[in-house]
Amino acid sequence: MNTTFEIPKATERRMILLMNLLDSYTEDKITSVDISRQTGWKDSVVRHDLWLLKKSAVESAETTINFDGVSNGYRTADLREAINQALGLEIQKKNCCIVGLGRLGAALLDEKLTEDSPFVIKAGFDSNVNRVEILRSNFPLYPAHEMNWVIKQEKISLAVLTVTDKDAQVMTDRLIAAGILGIVNMTRCVLKVPPEVKVENLSIINALKIVN
Amino acid sequence: MNTTFEIPKATERRMILLMNLLDSYTEDKITSVDISRQTGWKDSVVRHDLWLLKKSAVESAETTINFDGVSNGYRTADLREAINQALGLEIQKKNCCIVGLGRLGAALLDEKLTEDSPFVIKAGFDSNVNRVEILRSNFPLYPAHEMNWVIKQEKISLAVLTVTDKDAQVMTDRLIAAGILGIVNMTRCVLKVPPEVKVENLSIINALKIVN
Repeated sequence: MNTTFEIPKATERRMILLMNLLDSYTEDKITSVDISRQTGWKDSVVRHDLWLLKKSAVESAETTINFDGVSNGYRTADLREAINQALGLEIQKKNCCIVGLGRLGAALLDEKLTEDSPFVIKAGFDSNVNRVEILRSNFPLYPAHEMNWVIKQEKISLAVLTVTDKDAQVMTDRLIAAGILGIVNMTRCVLKVPPEVKVENLSIINALKIVN
Repeated sequence: MNTTFEIPKATERRMILLMNLLDSYTEDKITSVDISRQTGWKDSVVRHDLWLLKKSAVESAETTINFDGVSNGYRTADLREAINQALGLEIQKKNCCIVGLGRLGAALLDEKLTEDSPFVIKAGFDSNVNRVEILRSNFPLYPAHEMNWVIKQEKISLAVLTVTDKDAQVMTDRLIAAGILGIVNMTRCVLKVPPEVKVENLSIINALKIVN
């Protein structure tokens, strides 16, 4: 998100999901009714999201998107561009790292994970030096104590945190000290971060509690 | 959630995180200020969450929790019990399955995942029969075409979906036909589900887009 007008989180989440849907959508135009039908979201919710997106596009000075016509539907290409712009995803690829290479973290050492995404994994870290040496991956793995210089040198701004719960806050503090601005938190812990750092909680157990 | 009074999703998410924090909290009492300090959430947000929790506890007929005294703080044990009750986690363990045993799904074939949680993994499924035969786990793995009877027989109500994006909706439809009521969706896709089925989206790429 780098627009002046702040899109609400719930809308942002839906726009990201919508983007994935548009990736495999073959028609030139799409209406809010089409979106509603394909996602199961209420038509009023979809309309409101699109209105917010339009507001964000209008307020962003650089926009060149023709983003009109509710009854007629939107041009799919324009809608994609508007979402990318509103979410700040239109620019260059962002560098990420995986922190914690246990069973889950090791499973993320996979180029396919970021295929067709605006992200590139640049490094993996683990405090266990043996694990770093044994694991194979297409990007370099480092002992956790090298985190600071690697993150700075590789211009890594995002981290996926897959350490054990007891290491979660310590590693978070080190990531923040190294300049990380966004953390996907796969531990069960609440992370304490300064206001400029964004956290998205992605614990599987916590998610099971929500759908339970 | 099985109370008459519906706790908002954002509060529910925070309560689940708070619960994890309370697990390692050693004091008898905790105040909203303590919670705010340990989580970084605004004090007003914490107070409002606790008020909602109290409201939910009062409206639930079975409650026996003494959940009073804001200035004084809450008894940690009471707070834990109130959260568990409000989120419907106090009863017996819920049975889950992992659907899709690729790199990510296979990493979840781990008893540690559900350790100290109200969940038990009862089965793993994959449409690739070879994969089902080769992978090792402490719970049985089945070819995807056996999903229907296994889910019914093992009384599985929750699923973690780790299939490829192209299989996401097909597998979701099969899970729902088998009686699954909650899905943790680790694919990038929007899943279409009937209103009684809960979905929590947990795609790592989508999360990176949010913290970007």
